Amino acid sequence: MRIEVYTPEYFMKEALKQAQIAFDNGEIPVGAVVVCNNRIISKAHNQVELLNDPTAHAEILAITAACEHIGAKYLEDCSLYVTLEPCTMCAGATYWSMLGEMVYGASDEKRGFTRHRTEILHPKCKVRKGLFAVESKNLLQQFFKNLRDT
Amino acid sequence: MRIEVYTPEYFMKEALKQAQIAFDNGEIPVGAVVVCNNRIISKAHNQVELLNDPTAHAEILAITAACEHIGAKYLEDCSLYVTLEPCTMCAGATYWSMLGEMVYGASDEKRGFTRHRTEILHPKCKVRKGLFAVESKNLLQQFFKNLRDT
Repeated sequence: MRIEVYTPEYFMKEALKQAQIAFDNGEIPVGAVVVCNNRIISKAHNQVELLNDPTAHAEILAITAACEHIGAKYLEDCSLYVTLEPCTMCAGATYWSMLGEMVYGASDEKRGFTRHRTEILHPKCKVRKGLFAVESKNLLQQFFKNLRDT
Repeated sequence: MRIEVYTPEYFMKEALKQAQIAFDNGEIPVGAVVVCNNRIISKAHNQVELLNDPTAHAEILAITAACEHIGAKYLEDCSLYVTLEPCTMCAGATYWSMLGEMVYGASDEKRGFTRHRTEILHPKCKVRKGLFAVESKNLLQQFFKNLRDT
């Protein structure tokens, strides 16, 4: 039996694992991986609190690490899997990297890039949304519930 | 005679010096400084080429360094001086940092954040534009002219 690991579901589960690491570290639980030729070339989770850096979102860190890995500033043949809809900043970062594909889980009505009517992503960037959205949202809701309860 | 250095002009000149460093290094010449209580707490220039990192814009680097300096993730009492109108990504970064004030030089009709009709900056962020716009634009035009000529 051939085990198919190179599926969008597999990659998003890896992003969810990153989100769980953020959760365990007291960070808003968002995780991301960048995939190139069916291979994960970077993984990252939100590190805003740890680094005291408002730009240290999972996507920014994953994009930076992916570019570092391939030694180039463009990711046109890559896919970004991220558990939550990227914010304006991170969507802007995918533009500059000429990201080929973005797959995100839960939608973010308040801070997500899709609330802007004008185009933010690179015109060639394909977008898929909703993959493991429930799992991503549950983790976020649990995080904010814990915050309120403490 | 008292020499007044703590003026917007002084700070923007410092940002222009950073842009010149970028120019000299073959990077698109954009520079930025973050000012807090009339003191420059970070300086940065565009390092996209050097770092192979599409997120390494002057503003992102300056914000990250400023937060590192003050040990906190918010810059609500700070001003960002940047020679060119920030792009969507960088404007989004100022949102997360709750930046108090943004002063930029030249406008960027194509890539600047103001082309979006929806709000990107933090609602409390004050904006001033056009300071040393000519100097900033001249440097950018010279950079792209050199690129074309080589």
